[in-house]
Amino acid sequence: MSSTSAGDRLRVAVIGFGYWGPHLARNFMDSAGAELQLIADHNQQRRAAARAMYPSVDTVEDEREVLASSVQAVAIATPLASHYELARAALEAGLHVLVEKPLAANSTQCAELVALARTQRLTLMVDHTFLYTSAVQKIREYIEDGVLGSVLYFDCVRANLGRFRRDCNVVWDLAPHDISIFNYVIGKQPRWVSATGATHHAAEENLVYVCLGFEDQLLAHFHLNWLAPVKVRRITIGGTRRMLVYDETEAREKIKLYDHEVTTSKLDRQRGSTLEVQCRAGACAAPELDGSEALRRVVDGFVHAALTGTSPLSDGAAGADVVRLLEAIQRSLRDSGARVLL
Amino acid sequence: MSSTSAGDRLRVAVIGFGYWGPHLARNFMDSAGAELQLIADHNQQRRAAARAMYPSVDTVEDEREVLASSVQAVAIATPLASHYELARAALEAGLHVLVEKPLAANSTQCAELVALARTQRLTLMVDHTFLYTSAVQKIREYIEDGVLGSVLYFDCVRANLGRFRRDCNVVWDLAPHDISIFNYVIGKQPRWVSATGATHHAAEENLVYVCLGFEDQLLAHFHLNWLAPVKVRRITIGGTRRMLVYDETEAREKIKLYDHEVTTSKLDRQRGSTLEVQCRAGACAAPELDGSEALRRVVDGFVHAALTGTSPLSDGAAGADVVRLLEAIQRSLRDSGARVLL
Amino acid sequence: MSSTSAGDRLRVAVIGFGYWGPHLARNFMDSAGAELQLIADHNQQRRAAARAMYPSVDTVEDEREVLASSVQAVAIATPLASHYELARAALEAGLHVLVEKPLAANSTQCAELVALARTQRLTLMVDHTFLYTSAVQKIREYIEDGVLGSVLYFDCVRANLGRFRRDCNVVWDLAPHDISIFNYVIGKQPRWVSATGATHHAAEENLVYVCLGFEDQLLAHFHLNWLAPVKVRRITIGGTRRMLVYDETEAREKIKLYDHEVTTSKLDRQRGSTLEVQCRAGACAAPELDGSEALRRVVDGFVHAALTGTSPLSDGAAGADVVRLLEAIQRSLRDSGARVLL
Amino acid sequence: MSSTSAGDRLRVAVIGFGYWGPHLARNFMDSAGAELQLIADHNQQRRAAARAMYPSVDTVEDEREVLASSVQAVAIATPLASHYELARAALEAGLHVLVEKPLAANSTQCAELVALARTQRLTLMVDHTFLYTSAVQKIREYIEDGVLGSVLYFDCVRANLGRFRRDCNVVWDLAPHDISIFNYVIGKQPRWVSATGATHHAAEENLVYVCLGFEDQLLAHFHLNWLAPVKVRRITIGGTRRMLVYDETEAREKIKLYDHEVTTSKLDRQRGSTLEVQCRAGACAAPELDGSEALRRVVDGFVHAALTGTSPLSDGAAGADVVRLLEAIQRSLRDSGARVLL
Repeated sequence: MSSTSAGDRLRVAVIGFGYWGPHLARNFMDSAGAELQLIADHNQQRRAAARAMYPSVDTVEDEREVLASSVQAVAIATPLASHYELARAALEAGLHVLVEKPLAANSTQCAELVALARTQRLTLMVDHTFLYTSAVQKIREYIEDGVLGSVLYFDCVRANLGRFRRDCNVVWDLAPHDISIFNYVIGKQPRWVSATGATHHAAEENLVYVCLGFEDQLLAHFHLNWLAPVKVRRITIGGTRRMLVYDETEAREKIKLYDHEVTTSKLDRQRGSTLEVQCRAGACAAPELDGSEALRRVVDGFVHAALTGTSPLSDGAAGADVVRLLEAIQRSLRDSGARVLL
Repeated sequence: MSSTSAGDRLRVAVIGFGYWGPHLARNFMDSAGAELQLIADHNQQRRAAARAMYPSVDTVEDEREVLASSVQAVAIATPLASHYELARAALEAGLHVLVEKPLAANSTQCAELVALARTQRLTLMVDHTFLYTSAVQKIREYIEDGVLGSVLYFDCVRANLGRFRRDCNVVWDLAPHDISIFNYVIGKQPRWVSATGATHHAAEENLVYVCLGFEDQLLAHFHLNWLAPVKVRRITIGGTRRMLVYDETEAREKIKLYDHEVTTSKLDRQRGSTLEVQCRAGACAAPELDGSEALRRVVDGFVHAALTGTSPLSDGAAGADVVRLLEAIQRSLRDSGARVLL
Repeated sequence: MSSTSAGDRLRVAVIGFGYWGPHLARNFMDSAGAELQLIADHNQQRRAAARAMYPSVDTVEDEREVLASSVQAVAIATPLASHYELARAALEAGLHVLVEKPLAANSTQCAELVALARTQRLTLMVDHTFLYTSAVQKIREYIEDGVLGSVLYFDCVRANLGRFRRDCNVVWDLAPHDISIFNYVIGKQPRWVSATGATHHAAEENLVYVCLGFEDQLLAHFHLNWLAPVKVRRITIGGTRRMLVYDETEAREKIKLYDHEVTTSKLDRQRGSTLEVQCRAGACAAPELDGSEALRRVVDGFVHAALTGTSPLSDGAAGADVVRLLEAIQRSLRDSGARVLL
Repeated sequence: MSSTSAGDRLRVAVIGFGYWGPHLARNFMDSAGAELQLIADHNQQRRAAARAMYPSVDTVEDEREVLASSVQAVAIATPLASHYELARAALEAGLHVLVEKPLAANSTQCAELVALARTQRLTLMVDHTFLYTSAVQKIREYIEDGVLGSVLYFDCVRANLGRFRRDCNVVWDLAPHDISIFNYVIGKQPRWVSATGATHHAAEENLVYVCLGFEDQLLAHFHLNWLAPVKVRRITIGGTRRMLVYDETEAREKIKLYDHEVTTSKLDRQRGSTLEVQCRAGACAAPELDGSEALRRVVDGFVHAALTGTSPLSDGAAGADVVRLLEAIQRSLRDSGARVLL
């Protein structure tokens, strides 16, 4: 018997035990507020693996058994194409839903799920894990407190070797991270999106460059790559007062804040511009960050929202915003990189 | 008296003693085949600095004095806008010409200089320094020998804090490096160019993203940035057989060759793609590289070409190719990132 | 029910559920050949944590209940002082024993345990985890194959911020790693040991420098530090043919092999030495390494040895060798760094 | 003609144009307060190289010609064995002297030179270049201001591949840097020295580990290595309030200041220590540093001291302190690492 009684705990099922499901299961096992009761997967070996890891948890093949069970909530970690069907069925069955990002395959599905959750008074949350890292929390704090001044650009590189997904291209796999982070820390709406990609080994793009245009010369750029020699997870933010690098692969010092000085002076000269820009490299600081696992905070946040009826950080609406942008990127990709106005 | 007699040495003048001129002067001083006789600059302090460094070298204010002097060759390290006038006057005066990159401000000027050098039977060379590094020589060798297989993408990041130039934007300042390297190691003609930028402090773009499209899904991308918190000089090349990272900021191991394995297998499954792509991270190797200064090889190459009448590695034609692409990038920038066909 | 029947699996108990116990437990849970039945710890909260993690596993307060149970093997992850008592009792009770390093608090205890295991025909294994990493396996392979030539020096830095242990000083905590690796990959007996340390916060040394002297100018040095600003886990091995750096903190490229060239030529000159040594930095290579968890191989190795009666890689004798050296280091520390002959 | 008249400038000769001489010559050429008039070297090729670089400077074979010339000061960059003779002759001839580190081959010679400079009222300065870096200046500032609290340890690693010197072993080549830095930033007198080394290719030690013992558990350690696969120039300083890493090979962020927290609490427990030490990794900061060349400040400092008669930062006395410690290290090396009391 576990140390806390099950009475006050959220009974949870995890649907999909492939790549991400086991991480969710482990965190639900460790979460004091939750009780993992069920793991569903079509694949026999995966179910066997789940049983070996968690002998106390039942496994089922058909997700419909989950809906019929006594669980109060489901965490959906299946291929993108099935998110909508599973989430809708779960919400209709009165279950709280945590969905792997992205929320669904298109905006119409997202809107439907958001509306359904509202009418059912259930928690619909998307697992935008990075929003729950102390690094992203710190970046948002910096920007809100004006530490960076006004943001001039937001440059992301999210590259690694594989894992080539079969259910979506690199944009739908990796861009949700950068988009959700951007929306959370900066929260401005782009005026246009432009994307160019290449398809080398898979059936869909494995390398894509995305530009997002905003007012006042703010520019965001994502480099998304499944075919990179080394893993890169770097976000660089340039501001009028300071610049910042967030390198997720760093064990420590994930965030570096650069106190560079850029001064502009008018010049009176015959040729060339009349603007003289002087840069001085300044000091650098890496804030202390809480190293605990972000997914644990996702799970705890979901459990808390479901038990209290409060809204989670990455709710359905936030997930829908991300999908809207993914669609625009996809349109630009299909349209040879033409700007898609938003 | 110097150790070798001046008889067999190329008498050289350096025009422009601002940022790059002193580097050229130092290398001409050290080059056994050259004799630096004259340094020209409009600025009195710069001339004083030149005299302090090289008491044996005369300094003049007006570059016309250079043409009237006994020098046989000039190295032009002045702002871009003056390249054409100075180079043309020098060629007409019968002098060999080494020009700072880019060769000139537009293709018409480039074509004229190339033709003039040909009719005058003089050496016209552009200082695309990087082509003379042992790193770029090695990369070309890898590609020619098929070590990388066929190239899938070419990704460059050239970012640093300043120096903001007043005579051109970040494209004309930094892109010549990446374009000349690309042309030299891969040598394919892009079918289209697309560029998006932002102007934050200066009068012209200080941050620009460039995409170059080729046949067969080959994609090249340049991230050009004058406003970055840390200096980045990285070129990543993905090939079908191997991948490569060239990090110019590394003291040693500037090139890393990754022996990753990417295998594709057909799958027969109901949903998702029918392609299964498996990646395995393999061994990594950093070749031994000659650490000697590339600019020294530029200068020696120029001296050799001038003295022997042979064609240098980065001749006028190569310089003109670079300018053609710079113009196309500029057009796309002005045209909101629309693809410019070539 | 788990996928394989329990009949052919080793029934295991983990004693001690503090820092390392949970790692052992997790790996025994995942090991197909083992069945974790019991976890023992004096601490009530730790037992509760164990139950929460592994509801299927029983927990007991008193280790004597383990001896009375039906388990066939125990993994001991308790403070050093209790290793001997627990291991002896387990062996006497006919149980196979895996002990956390170091094997015991002194050589007499080690000898007794080794002898007892032999007479009882039971497996006695020490958890020198690093020997089971693919990196250390590769280093041993390099040395055996003569890739490094003959080894000239072996330099280890094992530094981090905390964890200050209360049951031993930094030598007994960290040096077992470096000693066991050295013994495994080089296997030479030092002729003397010398150690100097400082005690800053704890009751015992938290910073110690150790020198080991061998024949033929081979020198080994360990820098052991609990009070370092950054985590360092680096072993540098200099050989006559090549040099090697093993940086355990690297996500990839943990091993770098340097193909440097050192040539010696006799000189005939009036003053200074008559030996001219020329060094040329050569290429560098990082071999592909299997990234799977070493502790899993420790656990599987223990299970295999126990089930088959074969001898494990890090058996009691290897563990005793390590303790012998730890004692010598300790003597030198107490004797103001005087060399202790072995 | 140079921009400032020669009247008020110090007329300087550089003796020895091997490895370091050219660096000194370049900086004297660039120094407004100095006029490099003479370069002396026994080697004909080196003199030719000097003339090629600085046609305006005379070269001589015999250093006695320097003493007979009109120069007011000499910079001595010859092998260690000749420092004393050359410096003494120069001082006796009434010339100010800048000597390459170490000042001389033994303490007696140092004392004699210091006394001679005093009686002659001439500047005697040792080129301990590192003291003039902004990094070391900053470290001294940190320690003086109590930013680190009281210093607990000082750990240096100064390792690289070659250059094997023929005129001294690795201690006399590299340790002067670490000793002079230690003396400058901490300034405590060690109570004992212990050193162990190995001689692999050369006639003298190319790998040496040095321990310096102080009161109050302060420990200093130098790892000196001519046979390392990668260049390391790292000084780690642990203090009661903060820790610091000075990595000279970093292009930027050479100094990192770690705000770690170490708390000690008494415990009442049966076994183990009664001290509970808790460490918490804190924020990290890299101060802004002036990147200008340190040797330039050495040269300017020497010129200033000579022209004004003031005492330079690294005067003869400081140089003598370093040699005293080098001798003690050498004694310990010869005496099998036995502690040499000071």
